[in-house]
Amino acid sequence: MRGTVLYGPRDIRFEDRPEPRIEKPTDAIIRISATCVCGSDLWPYRGIQKIAKPTPMGHEYCGIVEEVGNEVKNVKPGQFVIGSFFASDNTCPHCHAGYQTSCQRREFVSTAQAPILRVPLADGTLVATPEIPSDDLIPSLLATSDVFGTGWFAAVAANVKPGATAIVVGDGAVGLLGVLSAKQLGAERIVAMSRHASRQKLAKEYGATDIVTERGDEGVARIKELIGGIGADSVLECVGTQESMKQAIRCARPGGSVGYVGVPHGVELDGTQLFYSHVHLHGGPAPVRRFLPELIELVWKKKVNPGRVFDLVLPLGQVAEGYRAMDERRAIKALLRP
Amino acid sequence: MRGTVLYGPRDIRFEDRPEPRIEKPTDAIIRISATCVCGSDLWPYRGIQKIAKPTPMGHEYCGIVEEVGNEVKNVKPGQFVIGSFFASDNTCPHCHAGYQTSCQRREFVSTAQAPILRVPLADGTLVATPEIPSDDLIPSLLATSDVFGTGWFAAVAANVKPGATAIVVGDGAVGLLGVLSAKQLGAERIVAMSRHASRQKLAKEYGATDIVTERGDEGVARIKELIGGIGADSVLECVGTQESMKQAIRCARPGGSVGYVGVPHGVELDGTQLFYSHVHLHGGPAPVRRFLPELIELVWKKKVNPGRVFDLVLPLGQVAEGYRAMDERRAIKALLRP
Repeated sequence: MRGTVLYGPRDIRFEDRPEPRIEKPTDAIIRISATCVCGSDLWPYRGIQKIAKPTPMGHEYCGIVEEVGNEVKNVKPGQFVIGSFFASDNTCPHCHAGYQTSCQRREFVSTAQAPILRVPLADGTLVATPEIPSDDLIPSLLATSDVFGTGWFAAVAANVKPGATAIVVGDGAVGLLGVLSAKQLGAERIVAMSRHASRQKLAKEYGATDIVTERGDEGVARIKELIGGIGADSVLECVGTQESMKQAIRCARPGGSVGYVGVPHGVELDGTQLFYSHVHLHGGPAPVRRFLPELIELVWKKKVNPGRVFDLVLPLGQVAEGYRAMDERRAIKALLRP
Repeated sequence: MRGTVLYGPRDIRFEDRPEPRIEKPTDAIIRISATCVCGSDLWPYRGIQKIAKPTPMGHEYCGIVEEVGNEVKNVKPGQFVIGSFFASDNTCPHCHAGYQTSCQRREFVSTAQAPILRVPLADGTLVATPEIPSDDLIPSLLATSDVFGTGWFAAVAANVKPGATAIVVGDGAVGLLGVLSAKQLGAERIVAMSRHASRQKLAKEYGATDIVTERGDEGVARIKELIGGIGADSVLECVGTQESMKQAIRCARPGGSVGYVGVPHGVELDGTQLFYSHVHLHGGPAPVRRFLPELIELVWKKKVNPGRVFDLVLPLGQVAEGYRAMDERRAIKALLRP
């Protein structure tokens, strides 16, 4: 088969790769229905995160089970399944606590931009849909694999409650789905920070009540002005830079919560500022597996349409163009179909 | 009157000071029954926190109301009252949210190591006891003013629940009362990190089930070994250094909580480490006012004895010896009686 490999900054190749096969009795092999490019893929693509050697790419996936190892009991060939970017056994103490991305046996799934994928710990990792989905549901089901699950975790970590005021820092796909998640969890006022017309539009469709285009000190001042000078109950940090993190903390009210899901790059938090901010801080790699059953159901019943973040659909063979379009911000998120 | 003034590193003087009087109609004047030296007083005492000029000291207090301004309604002359180190109006949105130390009108109370004290925003700040307390209750009532309230907030911020495993980093008076607070809130296993025999003893009396003397990597390893390799549900950080904060975060399980109340000195948190730790982080200057009624009641009914952290009692005139004894770790905490 052919799969996606990153060779260096902006050098994505779609090339011959060995076809995955069952390696352990807990594995499953799935035929990918759709995969996509993640915002976090852009860190190594841009050379900000160094890679030591050519690296297969892709960690968002859904598809049909082709084969399972002989210890797999929960999924079977022919089912449509979705999994998260970290395979997890879903039985260890960390999984039981709802932190499957800290599973004691976790394995990163890193070769999903390909037609065939091996998923370790299949019983703990994969969740099957009630039936084979119709084609129009595929983008939204794919979104639950990471980007929707991550936006949802941002809202949960930011403690969004009915009636809350929520600020979303970041207008990438995760931020936009953070808006959708905050809305679903009952936020009354949702402020999206965005400078891009197309993203502002989608943010509003997803439930944003206000858009703030300013950043830094001006952004914080504008937000405090909008919400009565007090600071927000909940702030969703969906970027991962020093600036975005500081901004998120400064937007929260004392006792408010910052949920951060942007993979940090060069973030250092000043202990004294954090201390006097009185915020709750929680985040990390989203334990998507915790939320998958609930999010799949929301999609299945057509209560939400997270797949709308995919504004570019390409054949998998054109994966390099997907990266380019996202890097140049011509696309919010690129969906790839084998 | 004479009051306590810090002139520079290790230069504490008890000298003539103007007697406080009502300055605003919301003030109260109280005659101090007892005050004390705080661990945080040692930062400027040791010269680690610079002072620009001679600085009056003291922010823990209880005593009898002598006079109130003409807008004060909740307390009256003759009552025994306790207040927190930040005066607060207890009516602003931050106070209503339970973060009185972020009150929009907060004022630091900084002249309490003296026989007479002016307390701003008396209605919001002071809580009266049911009657004039007997003398044996004074140390524990004084403790609610800061050190018990702060240990309690550490346990609340660390989300201590019945059955929880709690680690307490720091064996100062706040850490010891963190142990007591975790016990009161139902923690089943309480590990105190301490190297000092007298403090270990008090920690055990307050409810510690285990003592760990190791620090750094060894301390973390020892704790994980004690609690089954998983990490703690709750960690109370009661020091405020880079090392103690890192240790606290590393001791918590994914999804666990770190409550930090040690005033940070030189603390920088690495965003990436925090991200992958999956911990909840909350803390700051303890909103003691939120807890005062509850803590006063616990003391009044003799359910707890937080005053045992005072292992040195001195006449106020010997305040300099109180600082010396705490600086040299000869005393856990020095109580001063005018």
